[in-house]
Amino acid sequence: MSGRLSVIGLGPAGADMRTPEAEAALAAASDLFGYGPYLDRVSLRADQRAHASDNRVEGERARAALELAASGASVAMVTGGDPGVFAMAAAVCEEIEQGPEAWRALEVSFIPGITAMLAVAAKVGAPLGHDFCAISLSDNLKPWDLVLKRLTMAAQAGFVIALYNVRSKARPWQLGAAFEVLRAELPPTVPVIFGRAAGRADQAMVIVDLAQADAEIADMATCVIIGSPETRVIERPGLAPLVYSPRSVGGTG
Amino acid sequence: MSGRLSVIGLGPAGADMRTPEAEAALAAASDLFGYGPYLDRVSLRADQRAHASDNRVEGERARAALELAASGASVAMVTGGDPGVFAMAAAVCEEIEQGPEAWRALEVSFIPGITAMLAVAAKVGAPLGHDFCAISLSDNLKPWDLVLKRLTMAAQAGFVIALYNVRSKARPWQLGAAFEVLRAELPPTVPVIFGRAAGRADQAMVIVDLAQADAEIADMATCVIIGSPETRVIERPGLAPLVYSPRSVGGTG
Repeated sequence: MSGRLSVIGLGPAGADMRTPEAEAALAAASDLFGYGPYLDRVSLRADQRAHASDNRVEGERARAALELAASGASVAMVTGGDPGVFAMAAAVCEEIEQGPEAWRALEVSFIPGITAMLAVAAKVGAPLGHDFCAISLSDNLKPWDLVLKRLTMAAQAGFVIALYNVRSKARPWQLGAAFEVLRAELPPTVPVIFGRAAGRADQAMVIVDLAQADAEIADMATCVIIGSPETRVIERPGLAPLVYSPRSVGGTG
Repeated sequence: MSGRLSVIGLGPAGADMRTPEAEAALAAASDLFGYGPYLDRVSLRADQRAHASDNRVEGERARAALELAASGASVAMVTGGDPGVFAMAAAVCEEIEQGPEAWRALEVSFIPGITAMLAVAAKVGAPLGHDFCAISLSDNLKPWDLVLKRLTMAAQAGFVIALYNVRSKARPWQLGAAFEVLRAELPPTVPVIFGRAAGRADQAMVIVDLAQADAEIADMATCVIIGSPETRVIERPGLAPLVYSPRSVGGTG
């Protein structure tokens, strides 16, 4: 029997935001790998084994999963959101490229999920309704100067900007520095959305102007969306405002 | 009874890639609006009414749905992929902002879905594994010069680029022009993915170098992903290659 590995996106919250395709891939696995809190979201059968790991050992976790799959097991790697957006899919590909030749012969599949920026956007309206970009604010894996260059160019190009990995205990200052750079490029009234734990019980959506954006509002579970100069806020009596980016720009449409 | 409107992402394919949250919102609706082929993907009960429309009347469709919701109905607006990514969510917000005051008092919700670039990325590996952007190639709603500016700056900033609305009968030349501009900015070996109908029976994934990228490969159902200079292709004996963008860049990590 030849093994296989599925890299599965659980979405941002509970089973309500998880696709049947993801559920079927979870059910087909004998062994499930992942960061502990993501594995905790899955209900395992008695015949399924969990292999929980810490959140900063992606390479090690990917290698362990590939080794077990190569031995013939049906292995699942679970991630929050979508596996391909700042999650485990790239780490698995890196290890396949660098690992033993046998890993290239494995059946590997990637099961998409609702990534955080889509869940956050849906909770407040349609801030990603026009051209946008997604940037990881972590400087563990790229130089901070490159992050700043991308933020600056994204703002100058008129993209709405979704920020992932905005803050951790080891990276407390980066988000504030990002806001500083963006304030030099964008109008002070551009809406900023701090989207925490979208779809979960402890969800919190905070909408402020860029001028008032304070990095202290964010934590590890927060995805930050920074509007473009075109992004608008609709105030609604008795309801939360809607934030959206119009489909047309520059007077067309 | 006060009405409500749910703007629902059906995902890129069948029910297999649709969340339980989306299914529940569909089931709760008395009236469903949408572009005909998207409505055709939904199994309606006898007591549910379908209001199909053409694909270039977003504003009109949004107004009709809001009017019916304001009259007290439970209305669903269905879209392929995610409603917030180049789909109906922004059109609905535009009409709420410009429409009668009563529309601001409506209960409006947006239900996220798997957007095309995530589905295409998952089929080939992890091309969106590092910073990326999403650009609509349609110049119906923005000047073509702005599209070219964003393509150029996105390439210069090192983003992987996902292109939506790449081609239609009325817009046959834009994708070829986009490749021309990108060839001036990026190495000729950068991988380009033509991801057609991801997850559907007529799915087709084509991977070529930017130097060989031919707009004729694409049609209306195609999402195109253009790698960054860091994006890699892993050849696998007897299996389709994997395309991925490493998590680290610039020698870090």
